[in-house]
Amino acid sequence: MTGVDETQDGPALPPGEGGPVRVRIDLAYDGTDFSGWARQPGRRTVQAELEAALCRVLRLPSVMITVAGRTDAGVHATGQVTHVDLPEPPPDALLRRLNGVLPADVRLRAVSLAPPGFDARFSALARRYVYRICDGIEDPLRRRDTLWWPRRLDVPAMQCAAQQLLGEHDFAAYCKRREGATTIRRLLRLDATRDGDLIELTVEADAFCHSMVRALVGALTAVGEGRRPVDWPAAVLGGRQRDPGGRVMPAHGLTLVEVTYPSDAELAARATETRRLRV
Amino acid sequence: MTGVDETQDGPALPPGEGGPVRVRIDLAYDGTDFSGWARQPGRRTVQAELEAALCRVLRLPSVMITVAGRTDAGVHATGQVTHVDLPEPPPDALLRRLNGVLPADVRLRAVSLAPPGFDARFSALARRYVYRICDGIEDPLRRRDTLWWPRRLDVPAMQCAAQQLLGEHDFAAYCKRREGATTIRRLLRLDATRDGDLIELTVEADAFCHSMVRALVGALTAVGEGRRPVDWPAAVLGGRQRDPGGRVMPAHGLTLVEVTYPSDAELAARATETRRLRV
Repeated sequence: MTGVDETQDGPALPPGEGGPVRVRIDLAYDGTDFSGWARQPGRRTVQAELEAALCRVLRLPSVMITVAGRTDAGVHATGQVTHVDLPEPPPDALLRRLNGVLPADVRLRAVSLAPPGFDARFSALARRYVYRICDGIEDPLRRRDTLWWPRRLDVPAMQCAAQQLLGEHDFAAYCKRREGATTIRRLLRLDATRDGDLIELTVEADAFCHSMVRALVGALTAVGEGRRPVDWPAAVLGGRQRDPGGRVMPAHGLTLVEVTYPSDAELAARATETRRLRV
Repeated sequence: MTGVDETQDGPALPPGEGGPVRVRIDLAYDGTDFSGWARQPGRRTVQAELEAALCRVLRLPSVMITVAGRTDAGVHATGQVTHVDLPEPPPDALLRRLNGVLPADVRLRAVSLAPPGFDARFSALARRYVYRICDGIEDPLRRRDTLWWPRRLDVPAMQCAAQQLLGEHDFAAYCKRREGATTIRRLLRLDATRDGDLIELTVEADAFCHSMVRALVGALTAVGEGRRPVDWPAAVLGGRQRDPGGRVMPAHGLTLVEVTYPSDAELAARATETRRLRV
């Protein structure tokens, strides 16, 4: 286990007992002008902006934020969750002061003391994303978070195909494979709904592999435009290999909308269980 | 009467009779990066972009577009309406071809032959605008079309104040005065509603003077934050002079959402009547 993971593992101590204090930070961002969540040298990332804001407001030399969903370049969030361990309890006005120094495309929604055992990444039960597609008259004010599709999509066919993917499977066919990492995930929800010209694909799983949501939406879109039969996305899943005809949809249609956690009493048990399975 | 107005006055002829053909163009735009609707030398404006696109697609040396609502710099539109007189009937694929050359922040919604007597400006019965204010947790994806307000606003008080402004009045207190132009307008609707942290002010009138919507919203916001009593906006109206305590709200919260026209049979009569009153 590396030093970084040890930081993530550190249990939150109640304030006043001299140990680090774990703080939960909920945030939203417009991912358009970010190279994704994770810090990268020379790139503008959400993690780097948030860590810099914390250092500046709390006058700390460095902090390390742990995130629930590491979003790719161009992906947005309305319900991202993070935690950070601070040397002492945060000041009351931390939310307002952080929003005062953060750029306009990152907004904190809440700052709170984390309950014992809380880990933004490992305690999470599920992540929910929404992919937005407009297949009619485009609203230029939503072009940053909505993919425009030039032909009408058959949403009931997409919904039918989606239901065949639910449950625990090896999603290797819809993932960028990483050495030594499992591609088994539990897909809890995958719904395609239409409201006028706007199609929303809501995807929820215990966790996602890299580019998995956008690959799933790509397969359903192929069904929606009649290029593939309704059974095709499930057949690809069963093959456990990326299909050369598969398409990873553009990042800008995707938004992380919610991360679900268990009750406070079950937090630590959940983190231990997740770590056992994944790391 | 100038040459420009004569162009606007020219009646639409049915295609095939050799005269100009009047075409109605409905469009939406993200006003963030525009210096408003109206063409200005050296500035990026919606009118200039749309006229350039028409010239390019139709290979015309110049065109002149007439608009229903001349929006200011930074103001958006989802339901803007224009007309243009073309030397011959437009090709079938004009909508698609124009959207193909227009920048992403302008999207045409419909292109159609205008009914006889139609004038985008003078036939309009009413213009409807929405002003969006968020007084809670900000959504960074909506920061381009929503004003963030740092304190909670009392929306029922704003609604109460708004109802006292309805009807036909001299709105000089809420307008930038222009020499020789009337400031009498008929305010048809002014509603303040809340949905969570989002407040929408819906304003409809036969027409608006310059900056009138933003000045009205400024007065209601002063009531909403308790800085002014509920009766204050109506008292300012009655004074017929700009109040030095009045505030013109920022442009980016404002969107033109709809322009209403009479039935085809009444179009020409409406245009004549409007011209009589205004010009």
